[in-house]
Amino acid sequence: MNKHPEFLLNKIGNPQDLKKFSLDEMKKLAEEIRTLILEKDSAEGGHLGPDLGIVEATIAYHYVFNAPEDKMVWDVSHQTYPHKMLTGRAYGWLDPDRYEDVTPYTNPDEGPYDYYAVGHTSTSIALATGMARARDLIGGHENIAALIGDGSLTGGMAFEGLNNAAVEKHNLLIVINDNQMSIDENVGGVVTALKKLRDSNGKAADNPFTAMGFDYRYVADGNDIQAMIDAFKATKDVDHPIVLHINTLKGKGYQPAVEHEREHHWVLPFDLKTDKTKIPSSDAPSAKSVAVDFIKDKIKAGENILAINAAIPSVFGLIDIKDNYPEHYKDVGIAEQESVAFAAGAVKEGAKPILFENSTFLQRAYDQLSHDIAANDLPITMIVTGGGISGQSKTHLGIFDNMMIANWPNWQYLAPTTLNELRSMLEWANKQDKHPVAIKMPVLKLPMGKEVSEDYSTIHYDIERGSKVAIIALGDFYHLGEQVRDLLKDKDINASLINPKSASDLDSEALDDLTKDHELVITLEDNQISGGFGQKIASYYGPTKMMVKNFGEKKEYTDNESRESIYKRNGLLPEQIVDEVISVLG
Amino acid sequence: MNKHPEFLLNKIGNPQDLKKFSLDEMKKLAEEIRTLILEKDSAEGGHLGPDLGIVEATIAYHYVFNAPEDKMVWDVSHQTYPHKMLTGRAYGWLDPDRYEDVTPYTNPDEGPYDYYAVGHTSTSIALATGMARARDLIGGHENIAALIGDGSLTGGMAFEGLNNAAVEKHNLLIVINDNQMSIDENVGGVVTALKKLRDSNGKAADNPFTAMGFDYRYVADGNDIQAMIDAFKATKDVDHPIVLHINTLKGKGYQPAVEHEREHHWVLPFDLKTDKTKIPSSDAPSAKSVAVDFIKDKIKAGENILAINAAIPSVFGLIDIKDNYPEHYKDVGIAEQESVAFAAGAVKEGAKPILFENSTFLQRAYDQLSHDIAANDLPITMIVTGGGISGQSKTHLGIFDNMMIANWPNWQYLAPTTLNELRSMLEWANKQDKHPVAIKMPVLKLPMGKEVSEDYSTIHYDIERGSKVAIIALGDFYHLGEQVRDLLKDKDINASLINPKSASDLDSEALDDLTKDHELVITLEDNQISGGFGQKIASYYGPTKMMVKNFGEKKEYTDNESRESIYKRNGLLPEQIVDEVISVLG
Repeated sequence: MNKHPEFLLNKIGNPQDLKKFSLDEMKKLAEEIRTLILEKDSAEGGHLGPDLGIVEATIAYHYVFNAPEDKMVWDVSHQTYPHKMLTGRAYGWLDPDRYEDVTPYTNPDEGPYDYYAVGHTSTSIALATGMARARDLIGGHENIAALIGDGSLTGGMAFEGLNNAAVEKHNLLIVINDNQMSIDENVGGVVTALKKLRDSNGKAADNPFTAMGFDYRYVADGNDIQAMIDAFKATKDVDHPIVLHINTLKGKGYQPAVEHEREHHWVLPFDLKTDKTKIPSSDAPSAKSVAVDFIKDKIKAGENILAINAAIPSVFGLIDIKDNYPEHYKDVGIAEQESVAFAAGAVKEGAKPILFENSTFLQRAYDQLSHDIAANDLPITMIVTGGGISGQSKTHLGIFDNMMIANWPNWQYLAPTTLNELRSMLEWANKQDKHPVAIKMPVLKLPMGKEVSEDYSTIHYDIERGSKVAIIALGDFYHLGEQVRDLLKDKDINASLINPKSASDLDSEALDDLTKDHELVITLEDNQISGGFGQKIASYYGPTKMMVKNFGEKKEYTDNESRESIYKRNGLLPEQIVDEVISVLG
Repeated sequence: MNKHPEFLLNKIGNPQDLKKFSLDEMKKLAEEIRTLILEKDSAEGGHLGPDLGIVEATIAYHYVFNAPEDKMVWDVSHQTYPHKMLTGRAYGWLDPDRYEDVTPYTNPDEGPYDYYAVGHTSTSIALATGMARARDLIGGHENIAALIGDGSLTGGMAFEGLNNAAVEKHNLLIVINDNQMSIDENVGGVVTALKKLRDSNGKAADNPFTAMGFDYRYVADGNDIQAMIDAFKATKDVDHPIVLHINTLKGKGYQPAVEHEREHHWVLPFDLKTDKTKIPSSDAPSAKSVAVDFIKDKIKAGENILAINAAIPSVFGLIDIKDNYPEHYKDVGIAEQESVAFAAGAVKEGAKPILFENSTFLQRAYDQLSHDIAANDLPITMIVTGGGISGQSKTHLGIFDNMMIANWPNWQYLAPTTLNELRSMLEWANKQDKHPVAIKMPVLKLPMGKEVSEDYSTIHYDIERGSKVAIIALGDFYHLGEQVRDLLKDKDINASLINPKSASDLDSEALDDLTKDHELVITLEDNQISGGFGQKIASYYGPTKMMVKNFGEKKEYTDNESRESIYKRNGLLPEQIVDEVISVLG
């Protein structure tokens, strides 16, 4: 039910309705939008700071321009709650029963006002430039724009976009939303350059945008609706590329988000009165705490550790390292290519880089995994989080890292089944100096497990020996393997259960030994099947009589679908797996 | 035998020897180095313009700095012939019998003066920044430098590098080698920015480097040894990051290379007197000519084609399109991420993008294949060249594209076996508007084949039906499949031969049908096995009694190894495959 039937927002079915509003009404609208963002985020979690900061610019944009003919590509699109509210989707905030009906990123399936599913940063300028060029080829005249944050500007692709946008021949607007924050504090030379511009009210001689040939305009208060309306009117229908640099306040309207921007970039459900999260935290050891404790131990022991990440230290638990061991810490910005190549440079010079990457964003450093690390066979340690089936948006899926990492020559991609095994893998990866090692952090909860200290130079499978059927269960799907094993016992099948430890390397001796008294091997991996771990096993056994059945996710994008639903649709529930085993055995 | 025992270069065993040279001797040395570059390149082929242009800067660098303690990372490293000659490897140019003993890119296996195998652009600043940071952590004081061309600056990773380098706390030198060329002419806003600096002798107010916080110094003639010595002396041992912008002449000393820079960036063997290539060209239809003719036909038919590439139009045969249909052409610079996202933008706005990518460089746009194209299921056409086993340097291998493209949801990755089939695939890809389609251009010569016009929405295998053994031979390995089939006949095995057409999608009906009267399926792919096409077949047949043997290249980097040698080592010669088939059948 609509919680705020009195809101002006209810009068806006599409952006055209906004054009009748007075300035005062738009200011009222901004307050309403903020209220709704806070209400929904406090109940459900979501992006907070970026959306609170962009309210006025969004209102002004839709007041001045004519969407959907005029098109704005929102970088990352995590700041599009106001945009969605103004383009026919306010119900997703007004009505708590419909909170789930609107997805958190731009989504073409939700109507004509979103052009792409976007969730990775730094792509907007390239997309808009391609659109502008196509418009000119076809003979159109609509306004094409991109809006990109100062944090997203640290991604090289944003620069590739600027480089090409600068020389386009016709209308193209690039809004730089400068809120002086990335997810954490923003980093690098771009911070210096933008500060000079802000400090000079846009008049600094050192202007990287005009240097590249852009027309340039500055708005000192991007949270002033009238100023933004004026700026958009001045940049509408221009016949050349122009950069509109706007200074906004991330988190505006919610003081805790202004004072603690990092903690309010994205939030779990929280209490609006106290700002306290509603999700209880735990002091129990986790994969994250094991990794961070490991780094601290090594730093204290005098090792030249460099903990490297690309703009999301809090996701990895690295704030402690950042604050207390700054010389051992590097945030390269939203620049995964840089993070991996920087690690390559550091290890060559004698440091011990430990690189933290999120599975979905690591895709951007794919060439560095090969060209800079694997082809040079450099012994860095890379910790990969989020690599598993989840209920994420389709732009943030983590089901591709087995195919992404485990197929490169020289890379060893380890997947622990317990927290103690994780520690053992970290110890070995950091100690050895032969090859690059990646460690797949679990997305499911791992038990502590028994203490272990192992050399993973050559992979030796851990096998609980049965016969007839062997279950090779990788990483955090090992527990699923245990469930399947137990269920098979009820069917009088005493299956072997195997921890393969590695997504990249096989234990051929163990695999050969299984052929003696096994008919069927099943592989379980918390990733996509195609190109992944299980297909290596299938290929290995291909020329033999051993049957192999690969379990994992089919080749597909899911979008905010629950993990349970994805499991079920892919036949990954223990009972489904058992049924399939029985069926294959015939 | 040393062809030039009288050369001063013979006195240089390592860079320390250079320090005793007078300016006149260094000028003489520059002449010698140019002579050697031209002699070897005219005999063997290789990079020409970049090396001719960097001679003086390289001499000055090694005169002023102390390699290998002081370290220079050469971007792409295609300009390191002079560097190699000055660091103990002159024999690779002085002695024609030893031409093959020195590889064309930096190579740590050749001694202590090369730090990385490098062959993709734009990585040098990140590598050097990581080295500088590690040096500081460990407490060293050597000079760390990167040298990067203006063309390589268009790659976003170069900007990611600059962004982080700008805020390093100690010594770090970045040399911008501005020769006003990429491989083709350089493109984008960076061209504008550098021109302003050159035109003002480095004094333009609009300075993107000082904007980011760099110290900055300009050298108007980077081919003047004394000027370069002065500049390096002034930037040696500085305690902060500094950009040294040098203006050099690509191709200097060989007039045809100065006048026609694109054609002399990299050359085939040529006649030094006439500048004519020694490799006869052919007017016979090729995969390249089929693709370019297709585009021209469609443009002439009024279609809104956009032919997009990242800085290597001549590799794809696109100069004709560039010159004659400029509105249908886009070179985004060495910026593969941009090329793919630009195509995503263009198709959304109604154009028909045809994207040209080289397998090895496409690795840099991996995230765009997923995030921008596949997750949005956008119907672009992508033509992938170089995807196959070759004698390339290890940084330029093309054996990874089956795993890179064919595992993404929504992508259809087609591989033609004849030129007519290529045309049919292009027609269908361009006509359909449902999904992204990539087409794997052959690295081996394809026959014209019979005329074909097919819908590839659903893959239907072409099968020459035999029994017992089925050979599924993908793309340009189809001819290998024919050879194997013929040899098997001599062994009284009447094998089926199958053109699977797609590296991504299987024809399950055809595969199921084979189980009736086949024991073994072999897959042949001109790519790495791991993560590739054949493992999909192995996985498909896993739960059945059908045996499968995958043929392709093992997981490995090869470095300037001949194709024939790689084939043999991987058991890919027809006789080897037949032996393996017989062995598996038992």
